[in-house]
Amino acid sequence: MSTIAARPDPESDPRVRAVFDDIRATRKSDFINAFWRYIAFDAELLERTWAEAKAVMATPSALDPLTKELVYIAVSVTNGCSYCVHSHTAAARARGMTDAQHADLLRVIALAAKTNQLATGLQVPVDPAFDLGAGA
Amino acid sequence: MSTIAARPDPESDPRVRAVFDDIRATRKSDFINAFWRYIAFDAELLERTWAEAKAVMATPSALDPLTKELVYIAVSVTNGCSYCVHSHTAAARARGMTDAQHADLLRVIALAAKTNQLATGLQVPVDPAFDLGAGA
Amino acid sequence: MSTIAARPDPESDPRVRAVFDDIRATRKSDFINAFWRYIAFDAELLERTWAEAKAVMATPSALDPLTKELVYIAVSVTNGCSYCVHSHTAAARARGMTDAQHADLLRVIALAAKTNQLATGLQVPVDPAFDLGAGA
Amino acid sequence: MSTIAARPDPESDPRVRAVFDDIRATRKSDFINAFWRYIAFDAELLERTWAEAKAVMATPSALDPLTKELVYIAVSVTNGCSYCVHSHTAAARARGMTDAQHADLLRVIALAAKTNQLATGLQVPVDPAFDLGAGA
Amino acid sequence: MSTIAARPDPESDPRVRAVFDDIRATRKSDFINAFWRYIAFDAELLERTWAEAKAVMATPSALDPLTKELVYIAVSVTNGCSYCVHSHTAAARARGMTDAQHADLLRVIALAAKTNQLATGLQVPVDPAFDLGAGA
Amino acid sequence: MSTIAARPDPESDPRVRAVFDDIRATRKSDFINAFWRYIAFDAELLERTWAEAKAVMATPSALDPLTKELVYIAVSVTNGCSYCVHSHTAAARARGMTDAQHADLLRVIALAAKTNQLATGLQVPVDPAFDLGAGA
Repeated sequence: MSTIAARPDPESDPRVRAVFDDIRATRKSDFINAFWRYIAFDAELLERTWAEAKAVMATPSALDPLTKELVYIAVSVTNGCSYCVHSHTAAARARGMTDAQHADLLRVIALAAKTNQLATGLQVPVDPAFDLGAGA
Repeated sequence: MSTIAARPDPESDPRVRAVFDDIRATRKSDFINAFWRYIAFDAELLERTWAEAKAVMATPSALDPLTKELVYIAVSVTNGCSYCVHSHTAAARARGMTDAQHADLLRVIALAAKTNQLATGLQVPVDPAFDLGAGA
Repeated sequence: MSTIAARPDPESDPRVRAVFDDIRATRKSDFINAFWRYIAFDAELLERTWAEAKAVMATPSALDPLTKELVYIAVSVTNGCSYCVHSHTAAARARGMTDAQHADLLRVIALAAKTNQLATGLQVPVDPAFDLGAGA
Repeated sequence: MSTIAARPDPESDPRVRAVFDDIRATRKSDFINAFWRYIAFDAELLERTWAEAKAVMATPSALDPLTKELVYIAVSVTNGCSYCVHSHTAAARARGMTDAQHADLLRVIALAAKTNQLATGLQVPVDPAFDLGAGA
Repeated sequence: MSTIAARPDPESDPRVRAVFDDIRATRKSDFINAFWRYIAFDAELLERTWAEAKAVMATPSALDPLTKELVYIAVSVTNGCSYCVHSHTAAARARGMTDAQHADLLRVIALAAKTNQLATGLQVPVDPAFDLGAGA
Repeated sequence: MSTIAARPDPESDPRVRAVFDDIRATRKSDFINAFWRYIAFDAELLERTWAEAKAVMATPSALDPLTKELVYIAVSVTNGCSYCVHSHTAAARARGMTDAQHADLLRVIALAAKTNQLATGLQVPVDPAFDLGAGA
């Protein structure tokens, strides 16, 4: 079930076609996952979202590609986004995530959520030593 | 402001003292941050939480220590835990996180939250290709 | 799947019947969506929830009906409530939301989530100019 | 800091005065906490919110008053509402919550958040045995 | 759909077998719900998570077993964890939760979420009377 | 307190200067709020975030500027982002939001959060009538 009607032939729109072609070329795969097919209901939203995803996730940067996928999973799990947990777990595996790394990731995500609750429940004040903003 | 009264001399309790000593030894530092001082209002909660934090974060495992801190920050930001964002950003820096890595981390965290909203707003169905659970 | 057993004939309870009749009259439709049918397991919860929903959403007020539905969707997406995203997207469409407005709504929801993460990740202090509470 | 300007003399409005009088009578205390003083910027919002809070929290019902406060804290911690964590922890203490119960509450809240993450991270399918909605 | 492949015969691993046996003995039931079967993909994660769940939920403590389940549901609903809402609603029923208590629980959870939003929307400052942390 | 050290003279970087100049020109005001000053620690993050914020919020589109601010507030309140609630409430006021509209907005945000909890707590199944995705 989804909240928009799928376009019957999204690639008949040349703007959608151009983005889908770039997704296929970037990923070296013919598979266009549902996120992109659904968001294609608005060409401009598709273009901008893909441009950002490509710039952040598919371009060499200070963090390596697998680390970025692990962070993506952590956010998606915490937000409870079922689709995103599925798609980025698959992406992490495609970038080499092992079962042991997957279990380790889940351990950290779970521990973080737990201590987040404890710190919030006690309303622990931030240690002055952690403040880097002085003078801003 | 916090929701519990601080114990005036927490280390007079030998169970608290033992945990604080282990924190100092593990971190090679005399600094006990507020999270541990506040949670010390209940010795058993302190003991179990530190035991898990040490096992997950301070023991060699499938993910390296900096990656684990980045994941911890991602969860803490998404949960809006101010204390935890501060303490784990400091921890990541102590493990070598550069400004460029910090900016990259924030870019991924922000992009993930954005696409989480888009996938949830459209209620995109999960691609069958992402399902690994068949037969369970 | 749901966490309560459905009542086989909810309208045999006159309190449920009265609310369902008011829903039909207010909406000028015979359709009672599942939310109301399930919450009918407790007549008092049904009565109070419908009374509030009617007062807030179906009564002329400072904001127009479509704007209220857009805000409702924004909260529901952020909370990850699949049912609510579906039902209020349908309600917004029934109040005239176009595809262009839907895409615009998603753009704002996604941008807000993104900048929420950046502000929380950096722990940006609130500008004094934004404070209206002085003297309270 | 707050997002609205405080009314200089809120009880000069008879609708606000009536609600504040009822809060004082219900709680047998002269103290009006900030939540009610701020929400008084709109008399109708104050009236409805207090009416609901009184009906749910201050009226005998299937759950006892302390249990209801513990549930309130659990939701407030999970939503990261600092004000609400403070006010409802104080309310729970006023209803007799001991330090041991407070620690136990935090243990359950923290465990729940942790297993929520694990279930979401693995996308565990719901056991058919848990479904009560068949036939609805 | 899930993000891991199920182990075909998880109890062939003696560590998994030992935990499953303890779950059956603790609950006096042969039913192992999916959460434990999926998390069994990593024996160490299974062992630690079960040990904590047993210690917190199945061991006599300051809060009674039903109250702990109600708190667990409150967190799970707020986090939007569908699996956990199902499994802990079933657990609460097994511990005697009546329909009237279930409705009351939902009323408190819903009211808390509502006032969390109001307090956060107004950015209500915390009353000094609620601070117990002075001197910490 | 913040998690990054403020740059002492951010506009000495021509990339930061160009963005700040565009913010001032777009808003017809000399005031640069803290969000932009802090995010300026990484020029590329500043440039991209401002470009998106300007395109979405400051460019005529299918939704009017005030409606977009109301949606932004709704997301920010739900995410518990204190900074964002403050800055976008101020922005909504600058675009003409009245006290009555502010109260109405809060009513809808609070009702949505409440019914989100009820729908999630009951795990209400989505009505087939709400599905637009058939055939996608």
